[in-house]
Amino acid sequence: MAREQGPMSGFRDMLAEQMIPRQAMLGTIQSVYEGYGFTPLKTPALERRSTLIGKYGEEGDKLMYDFEDNGGRMIALRYDHTVPLARVVAQHGGQLPTPYKRYVVGEVWRGESPQAGRYREFTQFDADTVGTKSPVADAEIVAMMSDSMEALGAESLIRVNNRRILDGVVEMAGAGSLEDGLRMINIIDKVEKIGRSGVRFQIEEKFGGAAADLVDSYLDIEGTSAQKLNQISKLLSGSATAEEGVENLAEVFKLIEAGGFGTDKVVFDQTIARGLDYYTGIVYETTLTGASSLGSVCSGGRFDNLVEAMGGPDTPAVGTSIGVDRLYDGLQQIGQLKEARTPTEVLVTNFEAASTPDYMRVAAGIRKLGLAAEIYYEDVKLGKQIKFADKMKIPFVVIIGPDEQAAGSAIIKTMESGEQLEVPVSELPATIMDLKDK
Amino acid sequence: MAREQGPMSGFRDMLAEQMIPRQAMLGTIQSVYEGYGFTPLKTPALERRSTLIGKYGEEGDKLMYDFEDNGGRMIALRYDHTVPLARVVAQHGGQLPTPYKRYVVGEVWRGESPQAGRYREFTQFDADTVGTKSPVADAEIVAMMSDSMEALGAESLIRVNNRRILDGVVEMAGAGSLEDGLRMINIIDKVEKIGRSGVRFQIEEKFGGAAADLVDSYLDIEGTSAQKLNQISKLLSGSATAEEGVENLAEVFKLIEAGGFGTDKVVFDQTIARGLDYYTGIVYETTLTGASSLGSVCSGGRFDNLVEAMGGPDTPAVGTSIGVDRLYDGLQQIGQLKEARTPTEVLVTNFEAASTPDYMRVAAGIRKLGLAAEIYYEDVKLGKQIKFADKMKIPFVVIIGPDEQAAGSAIIKTMESGEQLEVPVSELPATIMDLKDK
Repeated sequence: MAREQGPMSGFRDMLAEQMIPRQAMLGTIQSVYEGYGFTPLKTPALERRSTLIGKYGEEGDKLMYDFEDNGGRMIALRYDHTVPLARVVAQHGGQLPTPYKRYVVGEVWRGESPQAGRYREFTQFDADTVGTKSPVADAEIVAMMSDSMEALGAESLIRVNNRRILDGVVEMAGAGSLEDGLRMINIIDKVEKIGRSGVRFQIEEKFGGAAADLVDSYLDIEGTSAQKLNQISKLLSGSATAEEGVENLAEVFKLIEAGGFGTDKVVFDQTIARGLDYYTGIVYETTLTGASSLGSVCSGGRFDNLVEAMGGPDTPAVGTSIGVDRLYDGLQQIGQLKEARTPTEVLVTNFEAASTPDYMRVAAGIRKLGLAAEIYYEDVKLGKQIKFADKMKIPFVVIIGPDEQAAGSAIIKTMESGEQLEVPVSELPATIMDLKDK
Repeated sequence: MAREQGPMSGFRDMLAEQMIPRQAMLGTIQSVYEGYGFTPLKTPALERRSTLIGKYGEEGDKLMYDFEDNGGRMIALRYDHTVPLARVVAQHGGQLPTPYKRYVVGEVWRGESPQAGRYREFTQFDADTVGTKSPVADAEIVAMMSDSMEALGAESLIRVNNRRILDGVVEMAGAGSLEDGLRMINIIDKVEKIGRSGVRFQIEEKFGGAAADLVDSYLDIEGTSAQKLNQISKLLSGSATAEEGVENLAEVFKLIEAGGFGTDKVVFDQTIARGLDYYTGIVYETTLTGASSLGSVCSGGRFDNLVEAMGGPDTPAVGTSIGVDRLYDGLQQIGQLKEARTPTEVLVTNFEAASTPDYMRVAAGIRKLGLAAEIYYEDVKLGKQIKFADKMKIPFVVIIGPDEQAAGSAIIKTMESGEQLEVPVSELPATIMDLKDK
């Protein structure tokens, strides 16, 4: 292999500097999800091509990594986590609890044109509740997303809507076909990009002035979440569909407020639609305060028809998906990534090769207290070893030279302050622990 | 998708029952590895075919999942973690610390014939120290494996040898070519399978009586690790190669004993060779007490020429690889898997839909103390909800009926004992915490 050959275009190696904060981030999300009782699932990276093909539209079929294996089977790499979920629900249904709350974190592969921030292998962290229409499940997913962002040290705002409300607008505006309805929703969804005048222009052009007026009135609505829902209920009072959406959100807001999530964290926003066609109820997006230009870092909604459409049994579901790479970028922007180059907290320096058994003993003692320790392998000059600790941002260095060895002691150097402390070897681990807790 | 279509042959879904203990196991290994200062690395699942092909012998080329992507590039799925490591060292060398201590856990794919316990997608958990010949690095890997097994609750025995000692046997026995030498080592390696008489027969047939006598003397050696090394040193005193191996192991045993690893945990065993041709120094295998029939659950050794042979720069290295699936089976056999169907510790039952905001409040309060809580979504009969908790092995159930609601209290039912306790809602989380700690 030539030296210039790194990973392929669109693929990445993640070295310790990326992996350490990334693992901390994923661990935090996992523990919040588990705090809500979601259970882990792992499905294979490879599926039958027939399981995946045709499930993601023309674009998806084109971007999918699919091929014939050596046994002549047509196989494909995982494209998202939703179709594998549908397959699992179809196959293991009887074995799964009802409702089935599962989370999954793993790579998906799409042959996109590589460009800044877009990769052919990326990670999605999904959670879905399958098998209930309860608004408690909706509220829980929203609460869980808010808790996740808080646990990551980020202030976030979740904007919530319900597709039934948008369906009500479509209904009242008289956009006839399903296709026309989706087109109208997609125009409303673009309001942040194209502005109110852009929305007005596109709606009017396609659906006429009366429809544009209705959409204008819809987008004009302002106030608190409760006030807005109230006004929408009046504006769309002719539509039972819209009323369903309003009722769902009223219930959801009651639940999440009871859970302690105020209007600084979760708000109703009638412009949120989510591009995907498959949502049937609540939909939401999440932006990080201080990194809102990145767009939504996690989003989702209710998709009561999708599991069946994806080949599973007729099953309601609501879920969320975190774009792990984008969230990582967002946390980096707001300075909430736990940066580190190594897990090592203590470097035991190597004064002379003959004393390495002592260093092993000392390192083992330090590890017994749960601190990460490594020994410098070669007995090179001490300055070089200290430099290594500095470069790797290892907070403590232990030095046991001939004097210390004779005295049964060790020197602890705190790298940040440069302070040195000599203690009996037997007290070394506990002393470092104390210094660390300071 | 037809209902009968599960994952493809050789692939598996892992449901919560498998995933929860598996994640706990992987987390334990990870924290032990990090305790030794190993840093995480992630490489793509897909590599250029040219990077992987020809690196694993004929068999490897045949079993590799390789194909042409939509852009006409020949690509292949990761076959192990060592070749990607060599690529990373070749590419990011200047950016990496020296020595580079990295761990990696991830799937690899091989198109093996599916059979019991053999999968086409499986997980390897590797750790390697790249860039040093120090025996401290050798000793550390052995110590880390022993610590990992202990942290997992397993008694283990690590049997250690050095390929230089086996090379010395080959040298003294006069097996001329490299190929003959490897053949001789492979025969010795099989002693557990074919017995001493089998080894004698095969060596004599291929290399003659004198060689068979030497191997017999070699295998006859008994005693403590130190005694055996001493005798081997005498037996192979004509071979400088063997002496190198003996010296390395003497040093390694001194170091691991200093680290607190006694002869009950790590022993010298002159029969250990590891099948792979690429080892150049220390080699080791690990068996679990009570599950030794599974064979080695983690093994490895020094491979000073491999990184270069794999396309990287000339770099010494020593490493270990845990077969995650086999280790899982082993821990299951000895009853050390933490079994669970859900992370949920508290089920908040649903007495009536109108009170769900109260349940949200209660669940949020419980989560604040770090306990995992979920709400039963539907207000079905209480008996059904309790049955669900029982089936899912959720340890505590919270019941807030109309009486409790009026009194501002809640009932905690401890599922194992059936005991019920009524407490003020404000004291609910702390009381559950106390009950849990009992």
